[in-house]
Amino acid sequence: MAQHKIFIFDTTLRDGEQVPGCKLNAGEKIELALALENLGVDIIEAGFPVSSPGDFESVENISKVIKNATVCGLTRAIKKDIEVAAAALKKAKRPRIHTGIGVSDLHIKTKFNSNRDEILERAVEAVTYARTFVDDVEFYGEDAGRADLEFLARVVEAVIKAGATVVNIPDTTGYCLPHQYGEKIAYLINNVPNVDKAILSCHCHNDLGLATANSIAGVMNGARQIECTINGLGERAGNTSLEEVVMIIKQHESLGLYTDIKADQLNPISRLVADTMRMPVQPNKAIVGSNAFAHSSGIHQDGFLKNAENYEIIRPEEVGADSSKIVLTARSGRAALAHRFQKLGYNFDRDGIDKLYQAFLKVADVKKEVGDEDLKALAANNHPEVAIA
Amino acid sequence: MAQHKIFIFDTTLRDGEQVPGCKLNAGEKIELALALENLGVDIIEAGFPVSSPGDFESVENISKVIKNATVCGLTRAIKKDIEVAAAALKKAKRPRIHTGIGVSDLHIKTKFNSNRDEILERAVEAVTYARTFVDDVEFYGEDAGRADLEFLARVVEAVIKAGATVVNIPDTTGYCLPHQYGEKIAYLINNVPNVDKAILSCHCHNDLGLATANSIAGVMNGARQIECTINGLGERAGNTSLEEVVMIIKQHESLGLYTDIKADQLNPISRLVADTMRMPVQPNKAIVGSNAFAHSSGIHQDGFLKNAENYEIIRPEEVGADSSKIVLTARSGRAALAHRFQKLGYNFDRDGIDKLYQAFLKVADVKKEVGDEDLKALAANNHPEVAIA
Repeated sequence: MAQHKIFIFDTTLRDGEQVPGCKLNAGEKIELALALENLGVDIIEAGFPVSSPGDFESVENISKVIKNATVCGLTRAIKKDIEVAAAALKKAKRPRIHTGIGVSDLHIKTKFNSNRDEILERAVEAVTYARTFVDDVEFYGEDAGRADLEFLARVVEAVIKAGATVVNIPDTTGYCLPHQYGEKIAYLINNVPNVDKAILSCHCHNDLGLATANSIAGVMNGARQIECTINGLGERAGNTSLEEVVMIIKQHESLGLYTDIKADQLNPISRLVADTMRMPVQPNKAIVGSNAFAHSSGIHQDGFLKNAENYEIIRPEEVGADSSKIVLTARSGRAALAHRFQKLGYNFDRDGIDKLYQAFLKVADVKKEVGDEDLKALAANNHPEVAIA
Repeated sequence: MAQHKIFIFDTTLRDGEQVPGCKLNAGEKIELALALENLGVDIIEAGFPVSSPGDFESVENISKVIKNATVCGLTRAIKKDIEVAAAALKKAKRPRIHTGIGVSDLHIKTKFNSNRDEILERAVEAVTYARTFVDDVEFYGEDAGRADLEFLARVVEAVIKAGATVVNIPDTTGYCLPHQYGEKIAYLINNVPNVDKAILSCHCHNDLGLATANSIAGVMNGARQIECTINGLGERAGNTSLEEVVMIIKQHESLGLYTDIKADQLNPISRLVADTMRMPVQPNKAIVGSNAFAHSSGIHQDGFLKNAENYEIIRPEEVGADSSKIVLTARSGRAALAHRFQKLGYNFDRDGIDKLYQAFLKVADVKKEVGDEDLKALAANNHPEVAIA
């Protein structure tokens, strides 16, 4: 099967860092940029240089230390933004300017008080100008998710002609359903004559919980770059989670796609980002949540102990997580209890476990989780003959 | 357009409550069950009665207090489980027994050491037996997501014939891609002769971040029930988020579907569940995260202030959230700054804001978030003539 590479464009330091409470200092940004490069991301969006002197400096500092990844700076379709971004990226080995403008009629009218033709002209001007500074220019058509499809195709064709190497089709408000977003990408692939001269990119927001599915629909229909963040951080309900799209592509070989991400670093970098950005990850977060590999119901524990694949499609070690947890609660069965007693050095027979199980349920009904100390007490009370220290 | 109702089956108190750390006491369970009924869910899965005396009692207590919703108890395909569930549900106005067994070859072999024919027989026996106690019996084919499709269709046909009113097609390990899950449902709708005698139900897990998209693919292809939890709680990476599927169905009228959920209670019940179950919701969670309606980048704030719809597809009031937040950070622009000063009672002209903006950026570059007190200090320092107390 033909294998296509999906470029991973990480925007944790731009779309993620702009979130309330996430602001990083200069040293933290460099630490995270190096961790992202080490993870294997292809492009690091380092900031929005014109927005503040601090942001300019961060993009400049990151440009100096990153050796392999492309370093990207965001701009509006405004000359000064582009000049400032180019200056911030001066030391980058592989600089990219990411410029763009709103392309939905709603944005054209209520944000720019303008019309389609003028917007198209400004888009082309911005890309042309950015190309005078760097060879790698990405264009974003903001709110493409709600834009008129024919107009969007005209814009994509024009900016590629003007020299855009990547064209980003953002679902800015997180509105699209996966099949709709996929159809949009397919339409562009089939109707933009020079589309093979550039890479189409997915930038999906998570307002309806669909960012990951939309990005996957995008690459299934011909996009070759996904814009994402660690832990799905980003404006409002956030962006596409890097860890989710990477593992979907890895698990579903039939897609014929791959990324260069080192999966075993997904959990370490998730924790690093959560700590430095002070943005907690919920326990039930896919791939990187603290419960992502925890089994608690009796049915699951029993099946898991017979064969882990019954309830796990990813081994936790594969994504750098601690090994699977069998948590003892009131929903646990005899199999899990026997397994845990064995781990503690006890060896009860069937009758022994039956007796202990009734006592265990009484404890479990009043406690959230039954720990090793509780189990030792249970063993001592019910089978004093085998009590160990 | 034909409008089909999607039944919302909430399993926060079963699949959610079995999660490590989530255990509730009897009073908390009743409080949540009443809140779920008030929210408008059609079915409340109240627990797994045979698993412990405490769980039995909870299902019994919930059965007594719930007036409109169906109350459901989980069982394995085991006679004793079914008898115990029936006893726990005795007082329910609308009792449902949810019974089932693993149907993927992996589960059949490594969990049950059995074969397809035996499993089919046990499935039919369980449904038949459950129907001797209640009129409403739901069957789950565990790990249906990885089951042989022809065998799955045989099982679905047989359990409907035996009296199942609902057949649940769980993607137990969260493995399917949305189009795959949708195709599975479509196959069953098209190939099970008696499928119109029952409702097909989606029960999707979130291990790859696709539970919501898979459930939507399911109902787009003919399923009419979604099993979900508040905040997406559940085993490992959790279940489908109730709030996400409900709002997708509400926002996307072209799907021709509706639910009976009162959307304005989504945020209050999310907080209630997070508090009572001690399971924090991450700020970037769709619909119910604390940042779900917060705007912080300058581009977004400016566009949002011109027209909220530029960046919001749902009004926060619609889902019972606090109103949209404009958070001032180093990425904020002059529009947001002027707006906030106005709210504080100041009225600066363009030049006044320009002068303040430079001072503001210096503060913003060292602080995560610039608050009202900071702004008042800025105003006093830069425009002492207009300082207010």
